[in-house]
Amino acid sequence: MSTSKFLLYTGPTPNGHQVSVFLQELKALYPEITYDVESIDISTNRQKEPWFIKLNPNGRIPVLVDHARGDFPVFETAAILLYLQQHYDTQNKFAFEPKSNEESEMLQWLFFSHGGLGPMQGQANHFNRYAPEDIPYAKKRYTDETKRLYNVLNIRLSESGREYLAGNKISLADFKAWPWVRIHKWTGLDGLDEWPALKAWFERIEARPAVKEGIAIP
Amino acid sequence: MSTSKFLLYTGPTPNGHQVSVFLQELKALYPEITYDVESIDISTNRQKEPWFIKLNPNGRIPVLVDHARGDFPVFETAAILLYLQQHYDTQNKFAFEPKSNEESEMLQWLFFSHGGLGPMQGQANHFNRYAPEDIPYAKKRYTDETKRLYNVLNIRLSESGREYLAGNKISLADFKAWPWVRIHKWTGLDGLDEWPALKAWFERIEARPAVKEGIAIP
Repeated sequence: MSTSKFLLYTGPTPNGHQVSVFLQELKALYPEITYDVESIDISTNRQKEPWFIKLNPNGRIPVLVDHARGDFPVFETAAILLYLQQHYDTQNKFAFEPKSNEESEMLQWLFFSHGGLGPMQGQANHFNRYAPEDIPYAKKRYTDETKRLYNVLNIRLSESGREYLAGNKISLADFKAWPWVRIHKWTGLDGLDEWPALKAWFERIEARPAVKEGIAIP
Repeated sequence: MSTSKFLLYTGPTPNGHQVSVFLQELKALYPEITYDVESIDISTNRQKEPWFIKLNPNGRIPVLVDHARGDFPVFETAAILLYLQQHYDTQNKFAFEPKSNEESEMLQWLFFSHGGLGPMQGQANHFNRYAPEDIPYAKKRYTDETKRLYNVLNIRLSESGREYLAGNKISLADFKAWPWVRIHKWTGLDGLDEWPALKAWFERIEARPAVKEGIAIP
């Protein structure tokens, strides 16, 4: 039987990588953090099977199961990131003082990605890559919206002295957005040159050893 | 000059109503909560003007400005709801113990709506109501996804004894989802009979006086 703290059901997608990147960042700081990974092949719809629906009625990866807290299951990436940070980032390295303005700014940018960047870039991927019909209107709608959202990130990251989305350190807001920006070429964008502050932020985070490890999982 | 605690930039949309409903619920409990409303006509793109972009670089309503905390601006509905609850729901009536399982479950369902129900039902509305082209593939894709997400809510609300999405009381998770379910006919669904637990939950919340007030704002 595993003695790891967590079991992570995940896959090689931006949503999966948000959690594996953050877990690797936590491991680098807190060696007692250990987890097992179960890779879910979403093309076979294992995430729609009854045993999985018990963990997440929405039938989506990633799902975190916390062995240390009675096998408590957590779904929705923003909820998993907040859960891990609140319970296991005991030095509060990846968030801010509770109820501070920085904490609210972190949440605002976390939810900007959770409700905007992720869903809309996901739709761009669908129509540019997977849809059985060629629908120029939908391709343009979601590619344009992805570019608009990259521009919003670029506005934020162009503020004087700003290196990360909230406060003056890397936080959950960055770990949520980064795996989406990482796959911009897959989405159909040529590169990030149009958004220089976003590009510099992307490369700053890409250079972190834990981030490199996280995107190799599973 | 206004002596209200807050200024809410909003409009008569599900995202706007999430905040006005919650503010009315807070007012009912805490009479010192007062706010002014500035209605933004999104059809004229006022929310894309420079003064608004300073408040929310994403150019979207709603935005809350907190006069009591240095005119701090908050955007993204999930962030506004959490901000109001953490700072002003001093009896913790609409959330749970910090770091408890109930609190995480509330966040999971809050983000289910923020990242799933809202964006996907919004796309259904676009293709069923606003798009200049008739695109049957996209209409079906987003109408089917909206129904699937209603079914997920129905699974959760069908649990024995469950009246609300998290714990055993109404919380932010319910205020986030409810205004989307409210406009199901606008989205093109006939009614809620297919999802009896969801329908009962919908009517339970609809009967609350503060909810009736909130959906009349602006």
